[in-house]
Amino acid sequence: MTALDPILNDIDADLDNALERLFAFLRIESISTDPAYKGACRDAAGWLEGTLTALGFETSVEETSLHPVVYAHRPKPGFPHVLFYGHYDVQPVDPLNLWTHPPFEPRIADGEDGAKRIVARGASDDKGQVMTFVEACRAHLAMTGDLPVGVTILIEGAEESGSQGLPEWVAANRERLKADVALVCDTGMWDRSTPQITTSLRGLCYFEVKVTCADRDLHSGFFGGAVANPIHVLSRIVADLHDADGRVALPGFYEGVRETPPEILEQWRGLDLSPEKFLGPIGLGEPAGERGRMLIEMVQSRPACDVNGIIGGYTAEGTKTVIASEASAKISFRLVDEQDPDRLAEIFEAFVRERVPSDSRVDVVRYKGSRAIALPFDMPQLAVAKAALTEEWGTQAVALGAGGSIPIVGDFKRLLGLDTLLIGFGLDDDRIHSPNEKYELSSFHKGTRSWARILQALSAAR
Amino acid sequence: MTALDPILNDIDADLDNALERLFAFLRIESISTDPAYKGACRDAAGWLEGTLTALGFETSVEETSLHPVVYAHRPKPGFPHVLFYGHYDVQPVDPLNLWTHPPFEPRIADGEDGAKRIVARGASDDKGQVMTFVEACRAHLAMTGDLPVGVTILIEGAEESGSQGLPEWVAANRERLKADVALVCDTGMWDRSTPQITTSLRGLCYFEVKVTCADRDLHSGFFGGAVANPIHVLSRIVADLHDADGRVALPGFYEGVRETPPEILEQWRGLDLSPEKFLGPIGLGEPAGERGRMLIEMVQSRPACDVNGIIGGYTAEGTKTVIASEASAKISFRLVDEQDPDRLAEIFEAFVRERVPSDSRVDVVRYKGSRAIALPFDMPQLAVAKAALTEEWGTQAVALGAGGSIPIVGDFKRLLGLDTLLIGFGLDDDRIHSPNEKYELSSFHKGTRSWARILQALSAAR
Repeated sequence: MTALDPILNDIDADLDNALERLFAFLRIESISTDPAYKGACRDAAGWLEGTLTALGFETSVEETSLHPVVYAHRPKPGFPHVLFYGHYDVQPVDPLNLWTHPPFEPRIADGEDGAKRIVARGASDDKGQVMTFVEACRAHLAMTGDLPVGVTILIEGAEESGSQGLPEWVAANRERLKADVALVCDTGMWDRSTPQITTSLRGLCYFEVKVTCADRDLHSGFFGGAVANPIHVLSRIVADLHDADGRVALPGFYEGVRETPPEILEQWRGLDLSPEKFLGPIGLGEPAGERGRMLIEMVQSRPACDVNGIIGGYTAEGTKTVIASEASAKISFRLVDEQDPDRLAEIFEAFVRERVPSDSRVDVVRYKGSRAIALPFDMPQLAVAKAALTEEWGTQAVALGAGGSIPIVGDFKRLLGLDTLLIGFGLDDDRIHSPNEKYELSSFHKGTRSWARILQALSAAR
Repeated sequence: MTALDPILNDIDADLDNALERLFAFLRIESISTDPAYKGACRDAAGWLEGTLTALGFETSVEETSLHPVVYAHRPKPGFPHVLFYGHYDVQPVDPLNLWTHPPFEPRIADGEDGAKRIVARGASDDKGQVMTFVEACRAHLAMTGDLPVGVTILIEGAEESGSQGLPEWVAANRERLKADVALVCDTGMWDRSTPQITTSLRGLCYFEVKVTCADRDLHSGFFGGAVANPIHVLSRIVADLHDADGRVALPGFYEGVRETPPEILEQWRGLDLSPEKFLGPIGLGEPAGERGRMLIEMVQSRPACDVNGIIGGYTAEGTKTVIASEASAKISFRLVDEQDPDRLAEIFEAFVRERVPSDSRVDVVRYKGSRAIALPFDMPQLAVAKAALTEEWGTQAVALGAGGSIPIVGDFKRLLGLDTLLIGFGLDDDRIHSPNEKYELSSFHKGTRSWARILQALSAAR
């Protein structure tokens, strides 16, 4: 019998009540992108305020430029302090006719595999996940009258609206958000039995390139064979972005990219992310990235370049014998480790200009981007959280990067100097943003138990 | 004093009357693309019927699926027979407010260079050009009571509507269109003092290529670096179409392309088509075609490849981190000499398929195309017409190809087995299809004299 056992037992015994509380939260139609639900968003904030106040947090609902944030604080001097983040807003529900039950009438259903699941809009993204943390706090407080660490909870209401207003609010409340580490519960597990901590997020650098040759569209009969064609110029630029081995061919592009330690690679290898498993569902079979790399590296620990759009000339039905005056492409890079977006912008622009004829013109627009974010592999909070997850699930937890960015993590680093542990219990088939969103009952239950363990473990780590 | 002198003198003496006749023709508002002018088109056909009947041609107005054609016939057994083609319909006149005088009130105006010009819709395209030939016949008939050769005249009324109905009418009247050579007066001079015979037209082969990779659009954060991107695949195809010397890189593409005889090349070199002259007006300075070729070759005697359009992914304002499911391009080839569109289609499709990953898909659609058309450099009618033009203008006439296609020339070859001499007196600044269309008085006058000479010269050539 450890100090945790009564707390975990309480979580088990109280599960039905915990579900009732979650269902009450899920019934609130807090769609942030639709002004018609502005009142519902405020209701959700109010519901959280009541819930967290009752648990003993000093709680307030505070305005931002869109929907309010809920701020709850419970200090514990002499112990580590954590900042937990989640969001109470949900995605719109259309197309409504594809829901088998009303989206804001949560229920327990049986999955095809016999496992029980919670079905409702927001069940997985993010109300169910938020409540795993809140219920873990409840159990600690119910059994011991205290929490193992100091806790600040920040729940925003505009995540599905690009977190409008949040960075400004965070910047204005730096002092009140001081902590040793941030915790975010808005990500997923590796699979239904393997817990995951997301330890890195790739950065992004996004450009638009427009090539202009002649000052007007030309007839390809009269001019074809003699004049520069901006589609040819642009295609050459795009084709040159990668070499025959699938590596990005910009000189100096891989500066700042670190090799992953062999023991981590070994762990990833054990996850066995096969092309069939990853690419099969989208109709593909062959990884198209860097030759010699595992698929799992390609999508999270290696940088990448993709053309996101291209247009030029005649694109409607049928034929037109035209040589266009201009053509343009949107080209973006996923960055890792220490790759510097400013340096990349220099390299990229030079690379592009080299490939444009002297009598033609190129405009390169750089949209805002971000550096990659990564936790040190030896960060103490990471180690204890990993151990706690492994103990709860009985399967070795994996520490892995994510391919895309999660802006709040960058904001916490930039504005608060905080590293973030991204720990979540969603599954790939949760249908977040789609009809019939669900959250596994096991995700909710064992997720709550996981946080109870992690809070306990963090009390000794900083 | 040659046999031609009285005829040429008559043309000079009768110029004012000839202009009156042309003006009557120009006053008819025969816009073929606008149904409101259907009656006017019929009036133009009737006016020609009256004119040609009065000259002694057996003339009729005959129905097609759009506007009628005028058919006039004057046989001369034992002599060569020519088929002359032109069109009586004109382009619409909008924007009307940009005309300094009403478009159907023809007048003589002074050009900036002091030369007189005929200003009206259709002055150059094609009524003025048609009348150079008709007036040449008139002068021959007036002075000698005969024509040097047998003549069939075919004037259509739907050229500005894609010659709708004409190929069918030609096919149904093969016997009545028998001739030794076709003459078309709907092209231009090299410059205002240098006459030109257009001796070749490039063919066209037009494709659409669509590459499909994943079966849906993907998020570039999650998938970037691991999945095939159809824009990359397509750009590689486009980039590979040309080698570093600007040559088309499809294996076997240049099969059937003949080298131009050195004496013809020498003649072209003398025309001094500089990059400044040709590319300056469109804002460019460097020829982008095959290295080592003259600009004038690039645009008329060499084959070419141009991408006419490309599209894929996100192309609106701003950014979207998407990897598109598909991307497509319209790709066309200008063909010369004996290049075979069917063979090219095979080569092209193989070339494309080689560059598409095995798990991706490509669809190649071939639109209809045409072979190049070229007169033999040693064709007797070409030689005598060139000599006649040179004598009239006092400047060596040039025989040159045109970069684009003129469908009637292909129809005559295909349906009648006839080669066509394209001889016209338009200038680049005639503003055909634009407000204030004009035709130089010298084009009309010396054009008429040119045809008088050519008809005479052709009587001994076949």
